[in-house]
Amino acid sequence: MIRIGILGYGNLGRGVECAVRQADDMTLTAVFTRRNPDSVQILTDGAPVCSAQDILKYKDDIDVLIICGGSATDLPVQTPEYVRSFNVIDSFDTHAKIPQHFANVDKAAKESGKIGMISIGWDPGMFSLNRVYANAVLPQGKDYTFWGKGVSQGHSDAIRRIDGVADARQYTIPVPASLEAVRNGDAPELSTREKHTRECFVVAEEGADLARIEKEIKEMPNYFADYDTTVHFITQEELNTNHSGIPHGGFVIRSGNTGWNNEHKHIIEYRLKLDSNPEFTASVLTAYARAAYRMNAEGMCGCKTAFDVAPAYLCQQSGEELRKQML
Amino acid sequence: MIRIGILGYGNLGRGVECAVRQADDMTLTAVFTRRNPDSVQILTDGAPVCSAQDILKYKDDIDVLIICGGSATDLPVQTPEYVRSFNVIDSFDTHAKIPQHFANVDKAAKESGKIGMISIGWDPGMFSLNRVYANAVLPQGKDYTFWGKGVSQGHSDAIRRIDGVADARQYTIPVPASLEAVRNGDAPELSTREKHTRECFVVAEEGADLARIEKEIKEMPNYFADYDTTVHFITQEELNTNHSGIPHGGFVIRSGNTGWNNEHKHIIEYRLKLDSNPEFTASVLTAYARAAYRMNAEGMCGCKTAFDVAPAYLCQQSGEELRKQML
Repeated sequence: MIRIGILGYGNLGRGVECAVRQADDMTLTAVFTRRNPDSVQILTDGAPVCSAQDILKYKDDIDVLIICGGSATDLPVQTPEYVRSFNVIDSFDTHAKIPQHFANVDKAAKESGKIGMISIGWDPGMFSLNRVYANAVLPQGKDYTFWGKGVSQGHSDAIRRIDGVADARQYTIPVPASLEAVRNGDAPELSTREKHTRECFVVAEEGADLARIEKEIKEMPNYFADYDTTVHFITQEELNTNHSGIPHGGFVIRSGNTGWNNEHKHIIEYRLKLDSNPEFTASVLTAYARAAYRMNAEGMCGCKTAFDVAPAYLCQQSGEELRKQML
Repeated sequence: MIRIGILGYGNLGRGVECAVRQADDMTLTAVFTRRNPDSVQILTDGAPVCSAQDILKYKDDIDVLIICGGSATDLPVQTPEYVRSFNVIDSFDTHAKIPQHFANVDKAAKESGKIGMISIGWDPGMFSLNRVYANAVLPQGKDYTFWGKGVSQGHSDAIRRIDGVADARQYTIPVPASLEAVRNGDAPELSTREKHTRECFVVAEEGADLARIEKEIKEMPNYFADYDTTVHFITQEELNTNHSGIPHGGFVIRSGNTGWNNEHKHIIEYRLKLDSNPEFTASVLTAYARAAYRMNAEGMCGCKTAFDVAPAYLCQQSGEELRKQML
C-alpha cells in the first residue's frame, strides 16, 4: 500500500481524500492542516487530522505527500520545503513562474533524494501533456486551447469586489463557431474575443444601481473588457440552487499537416467535461502520487513534471496487464 | 542529427519519409526494399534506395530503423530480427498477439542492448495512451472507442473478393446518437450495431447481379452481419474521384465518477480526424524514433511500448523549453 499524506483540506484536499479511497493500492495516513485540527472533520474513518506543524513527525509513515495549497503564496514555499522530507506532488499553476518553481524544487529534491512533482492537474497537467504529444506527432501545425464551459473562481471574485454586489458566479464559454472552424482544420487566427465569451450571474445588494454594476463588469480591464460579456441579475436563492457547482473543462486542439507538400490535414482534439474542477484535479494528483512513489523506489529524484513521467507509472496494473488490456 | 533508416516503402514508408523531412533533428540515411531497388523511386534527394538484403552493412550508419511492414507476416519476423542490430520501431497492430510479439522483441533487444519499440501508431498507439491516462485518472468509469469516419482496408478487401465486384471502398462510421449518449455521461451499454454503421461504395462488373452482391455484403459474418450496412453502386470513375483518399480517425472516451459517493461525472474525450491514415501513423512512428534514440543513448534497452515512454523524449525541445512553452 502506498501511504498518502494530504497537506491542506479545502476543496482540493477533500478531492484527494475521495481519490485515495478509489485507489486499491493507497491508504490515507493523515491529513495536515494549519487550522486547529479539532475544527476539521474529514470523511475517512480512522485517519487522523494533524497540525501542519507536526508533519515532520510523520516522515517515515508517508510515502507521498500531496500538497493541496494555493499557487500564489503556499506552494512556492511548501513544495521546496517539504520535498526535503517527503516525495511531494503539487498543482502549481502560475504558468509564468513555473521555471523558477521547478528550479527551487529540483535543488531541494536532489539534495534529499526525493521526487517533487509539480504543476499536476488538468491545466497545467493533462492539457499540457496533450499539447506535447500533439506537437511531437504533428510538428507542422497550430495549437488551440479553449476553456469551459466552466466557473472561473478569479473572475467570480473580481465581480464580488464591485460595490453593490453581494455574490456572483462567472462562466467562461468557448465560442462555438470558432471551435468548429478549428475542428474543420481552417486553422483560423483568433482574437481573445473570438475564442471565449463570459457569462455572469450576479446577486445585487438591495437598492444597488444595476446599470452601473453591469457597466463596471463589462469594462473591467483584463478580466472582461476584451470579451463579449453577458450579465444576469438573479436572487441569492437562484444562485445557490442553480450555480453552486464547480464545473469546468475545455479543449486542446492541434491542427496540423503531413505529406511531402503538407497536403494532408489532421486534427487532434482532447476534451474534458468536468462536473467538479477540484475533484478532477485531485484525481490527477493522486495518479501522479503513484508515479512519484514508484519512480523514487527505482532511485529517481529531483523535480519532475507530467512530461517526465512514462504513462505506465500512473496505473495500478502491471506492464503486462496494461499491454493486454489497453494497448 | 538522428540518422533514420526506413524498411519497406509502401504508403507507411513514404509517410515516414515525409515525417522525417519535417523533423529538423533527423536525416534519412537510406530506404530498404525487398523489391528491385532500381524500381523504387523515393522523394528525398540524395538518399539511396537499397536492397533489404544489404541492410546489415548500414549497422553503424543508422540510429533508428523504422520498420514499415505488415503485422500479419512481416513484423513478427522483422522486428525481433533487426533489433539485434538496430534500435527499431514498428506499428504491430494485431492486438491479441502483442504479448507474444513483446516477448520476442524484448529477448532479442536485451541481448543486443538496443531498443525495440512496438505497436506505435494511433490504435494501438495514441488511442492506447489515452485509455491509460484516462483510466489512471478516473479509475471508476467506463471506456468507449469509436472508429471513423474512415476507410477500413480489411472490409474493402472483403467486398472486393465477392464475385462480380470490380472495386470497393468501405467506410466505418460511429453512430451519432451513441456518441452523444457517451459524451453526456449516460455510460450506456452499446452493442456492436449501436456503435458503428458501415457504408460501402461498390463498383460492379458489367452484368453482375447487384441484388445478390448487396445481400452477400450485408450478410457477411464478422465483417458486416452485425452492423447496419448501406451499399451504394457507383462507377469506377466516381470511386476514383470521390473515394481515393485514406481518411480515418475516431474517439476514445472515458466516462467516470469522482466524489465520496461517486456523485460527480467527468468525461475525457480524445479525438482524431485524419486525412491520411498512413501518414499520421508514420508521424507517430517518427516521433517515437526520436524517443528510442534518446532512451538508448541513456542506456535503456529492451522492448518498449508507448506506455513506457515519458512524453518529453518525443519532442525536439529541451525539458526547459517544453516547461516554458507547453506546460
